[in-house]
Amino acid sequence: MKPLPEPLQACLGQRVDLIDTPALVVDLDAMDRNLQRMAEFARKHQIRWRPHAKLHKSAEIALLQQQAGASGVCVQKVSEAEALVAGGVLDVYISNQVIALPKLLRLARLAAQLAPRGGRMALAVDHAEGVQRLAEAMMVAGQGATVDVFIEIDVGQGRCGLPPGPAAVALAEDIARHPMLRFAGLQAYHGRAQHLRSAAERREAIAGAVRAAARTRAALEGAGHTVPLITGAGTGTMVHETASGVYGELQPGSFLFMDADYARNEREAAQPAFEHALFVKTQVISVQGGHAVCDAGHKSHAIDSGLPVVAFLPPERALRYANGGDEHGVLHPEGPEARLPALGRMLWLIPGHCDPTVNLYDHLIGVRGGLTRGVVERIIRVDARGAVG
Amino acid sequence: MKPLPEPLQACLGQRVDLIDTPALVVDLDAMDRNLQRMAEFARKHQIRWRPHAKLHKSAEIALLQQQAGASGVCVQKVSEAEALVAGGVLDVYISNQVIALPKLLRLARLAAQLAPRGGRMALAVDHAEGVQRLAEAMMVAGQGATVDVFIEIDVGQGRCGLPPGPAAVALAEDIARHPMLRFAGLQAYHGRAQHLRSAAERREAIAGAVRAAARTRAALEGAGHTVPLITGAGTGTMVHETASGVYGELQPGSFLFMDADYARNEREAAQPAFEHALFVKTQVISVQGGHAVCDAGHKSHAIDSGLPVVAFLPPERALRYANGGDEHGVLHPEGPEARLPALGRMLWLIPGHCDPTVNLYDHLIGVRGGLTRGVVERIIRVDARGAVG
Repeated sequence: MKPLPEPLQACLGQRVDLIDTPALVVDLDAMDRNLQRMAEFARKHQIRWRPHAKLHKSAEIALLQQQAGASGVCVQKVSEAEALVAGGVLDVYISNQVIALPKLLRLARLAAQLAPRGGRMALAVDHAEGVQRLAEAMMVAGQGATVDVFIEIDVGQGRCGLPPGPAAVALAEDIARHPMLRFAGLQAYHGRAQHLRSAAERREAIAGAVRAAARTRAALEGAGHTVPLITGAGTGTMVHETASGVYGELQPGSFLFMDADYARNEREAAQPAFEHALFVKTQVISVQGGHAVCDAGHKSHAIDSGLPVVAFLPPERALRYANGGDEHGVLHPEGPEARLPALGRMLWLIPGHCDPTVNLYDHLIGVRGGLTRGVVERIIRVDARGAVG
Repeated sequence: MKPLPEPLQACLGQRVDLIDTPALVVDLDAMDRNLQRMAEFARKHQIRWRPHAKLHKSAEIALLQQQAGASGVCVQKVSEAEALVAGGVLDVYISNQVIALPKLLRLARLAAQLAPRGGRMALAVDHAEGVQRLAEAMMVAGQGATVDVFIEIDVGQGRCGLPPGPAAVALAEDIARHPMLRFAGLQAYHGRAQHLRSAAERREAIAGAVRAAARTRAALEGAGHTVPLITGAGTGTMVHETASGVYGELQPGSFLFMDADYARNEREAAQPAFEHALFVKTQVISVQGGHAVCDAGHKSHAIDSGLPVVAFLPPERALRYANGGDEHGVLHPEGPEARLPALGRMLWLIPGHCDPTVNLYDHLIGVRGGLTRGVVERIIRVDARGAVG
């Protein structure tokens, strides 16, 4: 396992108010509730769920998710898979394209390592060259193990993936030629739809994804290929893929922590009431005429989906976080009764986007008993931090 | 020192074309030229330079900078200072506010550790409370060492710092009361001015900063305080602070690597011709109808100052990088003769902003001999990666 230094910000048993800043803190009670809500949703609708570990990059959390009923985890990179397998995770799907032979050889070694332990690896493909290289890597390093292969189709994301329909047939035939590859179904994730603000727009986008996936399945079945599973969906749209009857597995990640951007979505009635569970604790380090400055900038949280929101303040005393650069946030009074926070005051930020925020930290500091009076119960390693390859 | 795993992407002596992706690669020849240009500029103008190590977070590079004539390095955080001191750097200025007592105690321990080795620590302050807490920490953990203290004034950045003028006098008197604190001068950095696009705007902004710094110095001298040094300036404006005769030290960071955003500035004639030296190597993993997809998204480079630029392509064959999320970039043909890159093709990206990009990686891969035929000469540790506290 990757060696990591001890965190400077906190130690086990410490009171939450003494955690030093900036620190990435998980409200474990809220996280557990989110996990239970997800598990209940999947049970009720009898659908598999394979949460995306690109969010938390932690073997400890992946194992918690599997204990709660998840069928395994998704990741995006071979190095993420390596970190999770090293931490004891046995069922990992790289829901992305991998083309480089060194990476495919590493993937084949993981498959070989997992097979005798009853585990397995899976990969998405969208090109014959990817299938060919994967087969070669499995020949060289797979030690007779097999790997599940999903054909990725573009259901509206505009990124990787074949066009829906008959194009998938030739690729399924390529896969079928290699005994170490098992055709496992379709990867059909519509990432763009997750952050459409209105419930109606999201419903419509996923209706299109469902039609695209069904059409591709029909083409494959027409050519004699069984399609074991259609997998996809994220936190923003999963109620629709679930209701479709076409998708057999969900891949949500963000439901576990919930970011500020997802909170801006209009919520569907059927959606479980996921709550914010991940926060950046920050301290006010300077107070000037009309603003205060805190010690968390965009080296402490990702800003690709907007700036963080200052949590736990009533609307009339709201503070607005403005970008102060790599290491600073500038706080402006926003509510009608808002005052500048005092020098030294601790504040909590809800990140705009949790996935790349977690990727900035070596540890998550897990607090039990709430963020006012709780204590540090667990320090959770971000095993795959920086694992981009 | 912080334990770090070996990088997966490269090993010493490897040919550059075999470096796996995404990887953060330094063109060592270009970096050395930038360093020499900076050293020559400072020598010619007889001004001190204390480069900002928030850029590279590496003790190895900090020591190279000192060998080239730098008077020490700046950082923004106590944990950055700890990482650099552990790597052998002896003169570190935290050009930022620190309020938390645990951090100030760590700073005092660093000062105590450096004193017998002829090194020293410095800190910026903008409030009496900060001075008081620093003095207490030095009493408890400083072992008789002293620390240099700069009063930060706001010369246009709108972040930390006292208003210019007589407000600094009371703070200088606070500092003078504590024998372990040495009043070292003024911190007067205008961050916003660095990225003003026209040379005229930057010149005007720094003229204001110079007047503000001079006025503050006059107020302090009028009250009987000597002001040993005025320090500030970044890569974008340093020619103006240098010409002012008021600033005695420059704090540029970005000159070493140069990002895509700085390249958009209109260049002054007096500015050394710094060149791009830091690149993200990425691979095309999917090619679809009108676009290609590469394996570097915003977990591989920071996007706070804009998206990366695809390097080393002639304008007529330019590719435009569009955001494809955490792990993907979407490439569109832009030049009139541009074609989609082939599956598996390696490309080089110039990050929009180098500082937070470096902070995503555990290592910089140093290549000698150019990015076409060079080899990996050095793997440089990012000692202070993730050091935000």
